[in-house]
Amino acid sequence: MSGDVTAFVPAHITGFFSVHRTAEPATTGSRGAGLTLSDGIQTTVSSSDHSSVSLDGEAVSIEAVERVLKAVGVSATVSCRTGVPVGAGFGVSGGAALGTALAANELFQAGYTERELVSIAHVAEVQAGSGLGDVVAQARGGLPLRLEPGAQPHCRLDGVVGGGPIEYLTFGERSTADVIGGETAALSRAGEDALEAVRQTPSKATLVERARQFGEEAGLLSAKVETVLADVSASGGSAAMAMLGDTVFALDSGLSDAGYDPERTQISASRATVVPAPPRM
Amino acid sequence: MSGDVTAFVPAHITGFFSVHRTAEPATTGSRGAGLTLSDGIQTTVSSSDHSSVSLDGEAVSIEAVERVLKAVGVSATVSCRTGVPVGAGFGVSGGAALGTALAANELFQAGYTERELVSIAHVAEVQAGSGLGDVVAQARGGLPLRLEPGAQPHCRLDGVVGGGPIEYLTFGERSTADVIGGETAALSRAGEDALEAVRQTPSKATLVERARQFGEEAGLLSAKVETVLADVSASGGSAAMAMLGDTVFALDSGLSDAGYDPERTQISASRATVVPAPPRM
Repeated sequence: MSGDVTAFVPAHITGFFSVHRTAEPATTGSRGAGLTLSDGIQTTVSSSDHSSVSLDGEAVSIEAVERVLKAVGVSATVSCRTGVPVGAGFGVSGGAALGTALAANELFQAGYTERELVSIAHVAEVQAGSGLGDVVAQARGGLPLRLEPGAQPHCRLDGVVGGGPIEYLTFGERSTADVIGGETAALSRAGEDALEAVRQTPSKATLVERARQFGEEAGLLSAKVETVLADVSASGGSAAMAMLGDTVFALDSGLSDAGYDPERTQISASRATVVPAPPRM
Repeated sequence: MSGDVTAFVPAHITGFFSVHRTAEPATTGSRGAGLTLSDGIQTTVSSSDHSSVSLDGEAVSIEAVERVLKAVGVSATVSCRTGVPVGAGFGVSGGAALGTALAANELFQAGYTERELVSIAHVAEVQAGSGLGDVVAQARGGLPLRLEPGAQPHCRLDGVVGGGPIEYLTFGERSTADVIGGETAALSRAGEDALEAVRQTPSKATLVERARQFGEEAGLLSAKVETVLADVSASGGSAAMAMLGDTVFALDSGLSDAGYDPERTQISASRATVVPAPPRM
């Protein structure tokens, strides 16, 4: 084959989660809720004798992406570009893995369905230790509720109905592997409670309010994040910490209203998808 | 509550299907495959003492919409607008039913999750006899494969990965109820075969090729549709009949290349969603 194929995957901010580990990566994952964003990860795959990965023009190693290429059985040049911060709780590694799976399937005519590709990317992400639930959420778009962990057909998804503006501020990176690789029992109990609450009262406002409480209960807030959350609350807004990043996100103009100068994006109605090639002239 | 809420639901062209009837509308439905479109149905719901429904400004009766309002337990004015032809195989009734469910939930804070609302709209559509599978496909977006019939949690969806331009030509209306209410055994066998073929080789091209064969095997092609399909084939394009409408759709520029002057749209990556209200001034 020749040429290249590009996929777009929405960014995903996890609001809260619980960790579920099994002997198999396809059934390992997280339950929880989050928001997908109209900003995301654009991944271009082209055939090559030697696989390589770049992120915003810099050569990088993203284990989940390398595992996807191996699973599909191809070698390729993978170029990722993103408008969201890296290592800050936006699901960039999951997005790159899923984008690679979708684009490689199209380029190499690998013959997988969407669920099969989502499963390949989820398994790669779990094996790499870089995430537990972003991939299935990003494949769906919207405001995903992850009711059962793992990849399809094991996972079970629902959603909160909603769209609208999101603001965010990022103060730095944070390692997902450090948190999900450690002791997660207390965190998971808080995540289960939050999911139950959102299922009872499914709305954007409940989702973000329970995400805010989860950050406190799980003891994950940095001092900076704590200050910003207090400021947004004081001005009547809804904000929470992105899991897992040193990032605050708010509904609507929550951060601006509190006097900050945030980045702005939207809740994504779009699922992960290959981007049609421009017409040939 | 005051004001109104608007939802957008992508149009859905069914390529092929099989009919599965049970004693319960939630488990009744169709298996099959189709394409959701970036053009669709916009439904605005506002509170009212007496329910009424309009389509593109004309008062109409859409039984599926009326059943959704009853199921949610509200009375409302429902105003639908669509850029696609009505009664021509684009899922306008399913889109209006789902849009009503999503918008009414938000307006009346009815407290349903997305899956619950999709189920309400699917059941209403099945009870009204106006469709069997559009609603769950439209809720998802993309190129849905309906592997198991019914509403969630009963149905099971997968998808073909893909996007890109779609062209279509419509010659007139056709009653879905007449076809799905009649003898469907032969049609269903052809639909099952087509679904199996697309699962084996999941691509846009396979989907449309099997849809074209299904139209022939099911004996549903009008003379006009047959002529257009032959012309598109002769010029090297991929086209099929929309189930159920007197409509031909083609991938990319299939109809233009064959000398026709079609409408143009895109495969939708977007799921059905409420449309954020403009900011209050």
